[in-house]
Amino acid sequence: MEEGPLYVRIADTITQQVAVGALRPGDRVPSLRQVSRQQGVSMSTALQAYLWLETRGYLEARPQSGFFVRAPFATLIPEPQFEAKPTPPTVIGTRAILSDIMESAIDPANVPFGAGGADPALFPSRRLNQILRRVVRESPQHSMHYIFPPGHEPLRRQIARRASAAGCRYSPDEVTITCGALEAVNLALRAVARPGDVIAVESPTYFGVLESIASLGMRVIEIPTHPQNGMDLDALERAIRKHRVKAVLVLSNCHNPLGYVLSDDYKKSLVDLATRWDVPVIEDDVYGDLTFQGPRPRTAKSYDRKGLVLLCASISKILCPGFRLGWVAAGRYRADVERLKLVTNVSSPPLPQMVIAEFLESGGYDRHLTRLRTTLAGQVEMVRQAVAKYFPDGTRVSRPAGGYMLWIELPPRVDAVKLHRAALAEHISILPGLIFSATGGFKNHIRINCGLRWTPTVDRALVTLGRLAR
Amino acid sequence: MEEGPLYVRIADTITQQVAVGALRPGDRVPSLRQVSRQQGVSMSTALQAYLWLETRGYLEARPQSGFFVRAPFATLIPEPQFEAKPTPPTVIGTRAILSDIMESAIDPANVPFGAGGADPALFPSRRLNQILRRVVRESPQHSMHYIFPPGHEPLRRQIARRASAAGCRYSPDEVTITCGALEAVNLALRAVARPGDVIAVESPTYFGVLESIASLGMRVIEIPTHPQNGMDLDALERAIRKHRVKAVLVLSNCHNPLGYVLSDDYKKSLVDLATRWDVPVIEDDVYGDLTFQGPRPRTAKSYDRKGLVLLCASISKILCPGFRLGWVAAGRYRADVERLKLVTNVSSPPLPQMVIAEFLESGGYDRHLTRLRTTLAGQVEMVRQAVAKYFPDGTRVSRPAGGYMLWIELPPRVDAVKLHRAALAEHISILPGLIFSATGGFKNHIRINCGLRWTPTVDRALVTLGRLAR
Repeated sequence: MEEGPLYVRIADTITQQVAVGALRPGDRVPSLRQVSRQQGVSMSTALQAYLWLETRGYLEARPQSGFFVRAPFATLIPEPQFEAKPTPPTVIGTRAILSDIMESAIDPANVPFGAGGADPALFPSRRLNQILRRVVRESPQHSMHYIFPPGHEPLRRQIARRASAAGCRYSPDEVTITCGALEAVNLALRAVARPGDVIAVESPTYFGVLESIASLGMRVIEIPTHPQNGMDLDALERAIRKHRVKAVLVLSNCHNPLGYVLSDDYKKSLVDLATRWDVPVIEDDVYGDLTFQGPRPRTAKSYDRKGLVLLCASISKILCPGFRLGWVAAGRYRADVERLKLVTNVSSPPLPQMVIAEFLESGGYDRHLTRLRTTLAGQVEMVRQAVAKYFPDGTRVSRPAGGYMLWIELPPRVDAVKLHRAALAEHISILPGLIFSATGGFKNHIRINCGLRWTPTVDRALVTLGRLAR
Repeated sequence: MEEGPLYVRIADTITQQVAVGALRPGDRVPSLRQVSRQQGVSMSTALQAYLWLETRGYLEARPQSGFFVRAPFATLIPEPQFEAKPTPPTVIGTRAILSDIMESAIDPANVPFGAGGADPALFPSRRLNQILRRVVRESPQHSMHYIFPPGHEPLRRQIARRASAAGCRYSPDEVTITCGALEAVNLALRAVARPGDVIAVESPTYFGVLESIASLGMRVIEIPTHPQNGMDLDALERAIRKHRVKAVLVLSNCHNPLGYVLSDDYKKSLVDLATRWDVPVIEDDVYGDLTFQGPRPRTAKSYDRKGLVLLCASISKILCPGFRLGWVAAGRYRADVERLKLVTNVSSPPLPQMVIAEFLESGGYDRHLTRLRTTLAGQVEMVRQAVAKYFPDGTRVSRPAGGYMLWIELPPRVDAVKLHRAALAEHISILPGLIFSATGGFKNHIRINCGLRWTPTVDRALVTLGRLAR
């Protein structure tokens, strides 16, 4: 969390307060003297921060009065539109473009708006390494054996304990540890469906799950999805009735890429619907701990009484992507998931499981989460502001309730694949919208990763993107 | 490697020398005085070791002359028989017994002859932890990012470099890092075959690959397999011709459970056959570094000119099972394997990859391997001797060329599943032979893990097994 010049970091604290509503449009921000004292910086650094915010339209200076929060552009910019076009079950074709896009997203030469991970500096490396060293010292044979599925019991206990924050109650025995959330989703899919079966998904949805479904020879049916309110449940029910849907895959909290958190009522209705039709729900809750405001949202699983919901999650977006540590609480499919994990790669590595169990037990998690949520809220808001300012008229932007992905609908004439190529030539990676669907939609949409620390480079890259889109 | 009483460890050095042929039947073993001096133990400990070996039939004392190596029983005991019964393609049913068996195999209350792993003390924990600590110190953000497929380049380079020892030449780019060898086999199967397709396998073969094939909805055809010489290649060709076999899965070196190393001629013929029919070969070489004598055997892949062989391996049997680090050199299927790895669990954890790359580069590998091979040779020989001595007449035992698994054919009247249950009641786990086949064979066979350090407990457990089998 130490990147960028000092004045940008000071400026960040202001945008973050705006993002979480602690400062509202029209509010006077702290005086330069207060900033200087509170943050331990010079008056000139404080001034530099405010001028930087002013030139970007976040603050306005009123003579003799100080600096005030401007009505942010981004609150005025509309959110993406809802397109209700029912589509038939679809076999996902090989999308050659995807590997090119992925490659560009991880090329360190590019500003990685196309990447899936957040800035490594946001994660608690130091604390995790402390624990890692202790585990290695106290259990020198940590990696000399397997921990067979379902996985390390103390970790499963911590996960089950934290589930209550999401309104859930399940036993540690229901949890199977996996190599990340995508493996959890894969095992869940294989536990409930066979090749050729139809899986209902949101549209757009995370391209990773589409690729997983494709690789398993399953088909998808894309359910029209409202950019703030999720899948149309009537359309979902029609699809279930008509196409013998074998599972519903839902990203319920901080949807990727749309950013919404589904309401409790919606989650309950979804589970009621699934229960009525006896269709399992695979719930991907990987961003659920990253809402910007209010308490941790519930999961659909919290309404599940029949063991129909397979809840998938991980620590990759919160603590440490490289541990490849995820899990699935698989309800009535638990035994199948365990067996599939065993025959797919025997077990997950013990060391990350031991370290994360200790981290969760040691109690630093909530403190870290509070800091991370605030930072991400600020970063997402900064990018939204920049998009509002730099992108062409007619652009629409999601207003995420959490996570760090922004979904941008450009004017219809913009071809997002062309934009992706043009941006690459300027060393900027983005994800074109069409990979988030199997049916060729979202041609003028892009996804932007706001998990990057806000720096002048990021700002400049957004200026460039706006220019290219125009 | 520090388990068991001192005199047993001294005795071990003798049996190991017998196992590798440094001492032959009729040879005089070092005098008690020599042992005492060379090993730094008291004369009475040396005597205790020799008396222990004498009561077990390894040595005989000749008055005034000293101790001599006896003609070992185990060289007299015949190897398992070859049964050539052609079977049709088979859907592998759910084998409820398997999870019970697996559970008993890892229950620490049991002598784990049924387990798949070797004694943790055989692995170089201390050295790996040293490197681990250094990597964490030098790259504190080691786990804050993904290393996307194909995986950590320095590790792939080391793997490709070592391939020449197995007669292979492939580039680091051909290697995809996986979570262990079973994941490698899974990805390989998915890259070359679809649900319903037929995979040719040895019979018996490692039950893990049978379960993987079953979980992918593929069928197997079991090719009659000679206990010393491998699959009958004529039968294999007939199966390919008749059943449109989509891949051949072969455990070419230190076969699990049979223990043989296929000859170079055989490997070449197998690849010629596969090339003629354009059928990919999935070669599991996970025990290939563990032959007891001579140079490291070649792989079938070393004869591959068309990119048809997908070579799967790991460090789990040699360095560290819990790192879950394997790989596949997938020939012409490389791009498919990489894509499948990406959509299955994104990537393998970076930290084990970084540690093992450094370990391989640091050069301690060959020294470790020499020691490990000698130890395992000794342990396998000890168990073979014990089986020869304690088991009923009519028992046949494999004579492994490497690895640490022993395949035992009991007299036809013995039901191995019943034996497994009776052994469990005495806190001994074994694997009954029928799980090594999909067609109900090997009812009077068992597999014994000789990776356990030889101790009086192990000896007693074999006495008990012999009694139960009788």
